[in-house]
Amino acid sequence: MTTTRLEAFSDGVLAIAITLLVIEIRPPELHQGETLAHALWAQWPSYVAYLVSFLTIGVIWLNHHRVFEQVIRVDGPLLLLNLNLLLWTGLIPFPTAVVAEHLGGAGEAAQTASALYCGVLLMGLSFGALFAWVTHTDRLLGRLPPPGMVRATRRRFMLGLVVYAAALALSWVSAPLALALCGAMALYYAFDQASVPAEREPDDQQPT
Amino acid sequence: MTTTRLEAFSDGVLAIAITLLVIEIRPPELHQGETLAHALWAQWPSYVAYLVSFLTIGVIWLNHHRVFEQVIRVDGPLLLLNLNLLLWTGLIPFPTAVVAEHLGGAGEAAQTASALYCGVLLMGLSFGALFAWVTHTDRLLGRLPPPGMVRATRRRFMLGLVVYAAALALSWVSAPLALALCGAMALYYAFDQASVPAEREPDDQQPT
Amino acid sequence: MTTTRLEAFSDGVLAIAITLLVIEIRPPELHQGETLAHALWAQWPSYVAYLVSFLTIGVIWLNHHRVFEQVIRVDGPLLLLNLNLLLWTGLIPFPTAVVAEHLGGAGEAAQTASALYCGVLLMGLSFGALFAWVTHTDRLLGRLPPPGMVRATRRRFMLGLVVYAAALALSWVSAPLALALCGAMALYYAFDQASVPAEREPDDQQPT
Amino acid sequence: MTTTRLEAFSDGVLAIAITLLVIEIRPPELHQGETLAHALWAQWPSYVAYLVSFLTIGVIWLNHHRVFEQVIRVDGPLLLLNLNLLLWTGLIPFPTAVVAEHLGGAGEAAQTASALYCGVLLMGLSFGALFAWVTHTDRLLGRLPPPGMVRATRRRFMLGLVVYAAALALSWVSAPLALALCGAMALYYAFDQASVPAEREPDDQQPT
Repeated sequence: MTTTRLEAFSDGVLAIAITLLVIEIRPPELHQGETLAHALWAQWPSYVAYLVSFLTIGVIWLNHHRVFEQVIRVDGPLLLLNLNLLLWTGLIPFPTAVVAEHLGGAGEAAQTASALYCGVLLMGLSFGALFAWVTHTDRLLGRLPPPGMVRATRRRFMLGLVVYAAALALSWVSAPLALALCGAMALYYAFDQASVPAEREPDDQQPT
Repeated sequence: MTTTRLEAFSDGVLAIAITLLVIEIRPPELHQGETLAHALWAQWPSYVAYLVSFLTIGVIWLNHHRVFEQVIRVDGPLLLLNLNLLLWTGLIPFPTAVVAEHLGGAGEAAQTASALYCGVLLMGLSFGALFAWVTHTDRLLGRLPPPGMVRATRRRFMLGLVVYAAALALSWVSAPLALALCGAMALYYAFDQASVPAEREPDDQQPT
Repeated sequence: MTTTRLEAFSDGVLAIAITLLVIEIRPPELHQGETLAHALWAQWPSYVAYLVSFLTIGVIWLNHHRVFEQVIRVDGPLLLLNLNLLLWTGLIPFPTAVVAEHLGGAGEAAQTASALYCGVLLMGLSFGALFAWVTHTDRLLGRLPPPGMVRATRRRFMLGLVVYAAALALSWVSAPLALALCGAMALYYAFDQASVPAEREPDDQQPT
Repeated sequence: MTTTRLEAFSDGVLAIAITLLVIEIRPPELHQGETLAHALWAQWPSYVAYLVSFLTIGVIWLNHHRVFEQVIRVDGPLLLLNLNLLLWTGLIPFPTAVVAEHLGGAGEAAQTASALYCGVLLMGLSFGALFAWVTHTDRLLGRLPPPGMVRATRRRFMLGLVVYAAALALSWVSAPLALALCGAMALYYAFDQASVPAEREPDDQQPT
């Protein structure tokens, strides 16, 4: 099993999942006498959910890429851990649609929708297990990254675990707040990823 | 016809089919006085169907990859056999949606839905024909795998044929049981695949 | 503009269009007292339309691949001709859905649906224009194929033009017959393509 | 972060977004006594919106490709700017669906739909920011293009900004006219792109 085709397949699934998010935003149905502008405003939870889910899948893709560019061998458990990650990431459009429909409401529906959403994002952290497996020894990596870096990354996964669990709990207090916390977490990860110094790739200097 | 582009196209179709599964899970419509939590629980067949279909397509992708990494030449019949495989795999989201809608019910609808589902998965084994064609002689392979390995793989396809046919028959006894059998088969294949010792790829040690 | 990325993008669009066909096959709604088996049978036009469209897009992909593996330079008109091809191919799921809904009926609806379908497939032959542009001189090809081969291919496009136009006209006589003709044409192209002797690719003998 | 995988992911998202446009064109529902032909004509805004959005995403892909074939290094801000571009481009199917539903109507709904559409296309010009970042210095490029070329491209983005803003304003005068302006702009960009002289790629002359 080459990493190239595993990456290509994973990239495909992640690219499709991130793009499918848009089909959960439906043109609004107009009630009697309602303006379209009003109806579009009224479905703000759809836009918020699109934004947070887009960022989250984007960050999962970034993480996936960073981990797999160091992997030189794929073994059985890694295959299954990767399939598990794709299973949960590929599921994200569903809770996104549920949140989009119920976040604007109140009471049980908004709380349950938000809890479901946070719960699925929490499972997206099954990426942490994949990372732990890959960095356990240098079986799968060309060269194990410095231990300090591995520890820092694990700490970042732990942080995510705590924050998403907190968001899950927060769902029963305020659903919009819980979603905002998820969005803040995705933003934090995105900027954090973006700050990793880029390396000049040797084979990128030739014309492609 | 290079294998590279055939693989890329097949990967694309499989990645899209596996990701499209999610759009069959719809946000539930709430009946008068129903809680969202209850409505979400009530559509458990959707989740089961998503899981089993995801695993099944995942395993088809794994098999596809393993076979084609040894193929060095593509001929006409292989093209058609591959297109046939994609036709049935690409169809999987449809019986998945039918099962999701009717598995929770009883009587004829649940039975028919389950039988349809098992039948389409059975056609997914048309992969066996592709494998038989490829390993018939060494026309298409760089080096024919050891005969023992070929025979073992054919036996595994035979096993699948028997199990999915049994699941199809079981549909009239108990639809959930038939689906569980399909799920168990996919899990078995997944772990079986994952246990194949990975080879260190020569060109994976260079930076990509 | 490299051909590599143009091919990758086109492959992506074609792979998605072929896989999106399945979402036009909806789980049937059961009328009072109807069995699921009966309802599934009743939507046979969906399955026929899926099959014919799948074959057609599959053949377009095969043709696309055969042409572009000889192209070494992409110029402006080729870009636009390719975008035009993708526009019509990407549209195929729409007439497929219309045919699926109305073929089983009778009178004007079945006729119009079939005519729309044949018309869009006819536009898929805008591939012929792309082929003519590419083989006009050797500007874009590494080596122009033998004139006899070019002429044979153009004749095959001409044949398609005539057959699809005939199917379009046939729609007003018998819609199912028109669809059958489209399916026969796709099958003919598929077997025709598959019979082209495959060349052993020099760089396919190395491990990928 | 290699540019190769960033391009592959972006290509995936753009190819999916462009192909998803078709699922917004639904088979029409027939009113009592209405012919299918009439119902198909009546949804002409769907076809216009498909065409304009297809061209627009096609042009974004062309631009994306042209810029990234010169990029040899990806840094954090570029990652975020690219994700931002994909976010807005991936959203295009939504305003396309809104326009398809309301353009044929009159008054507020058609105006709002058109304004939403033009507004999202305007955000697609966030590509300009990405381009500005990439060409600011030669940090990210192998070789900075001639300043005259950079300035010409920036001027072209400026033009787009002005035209889409004008189309946005025009929405309140005539929605179809605003859409036509967007379409004309996409056509202009497409032909403009297509006229860039193609370079003979060194590694495209070897058999692939």
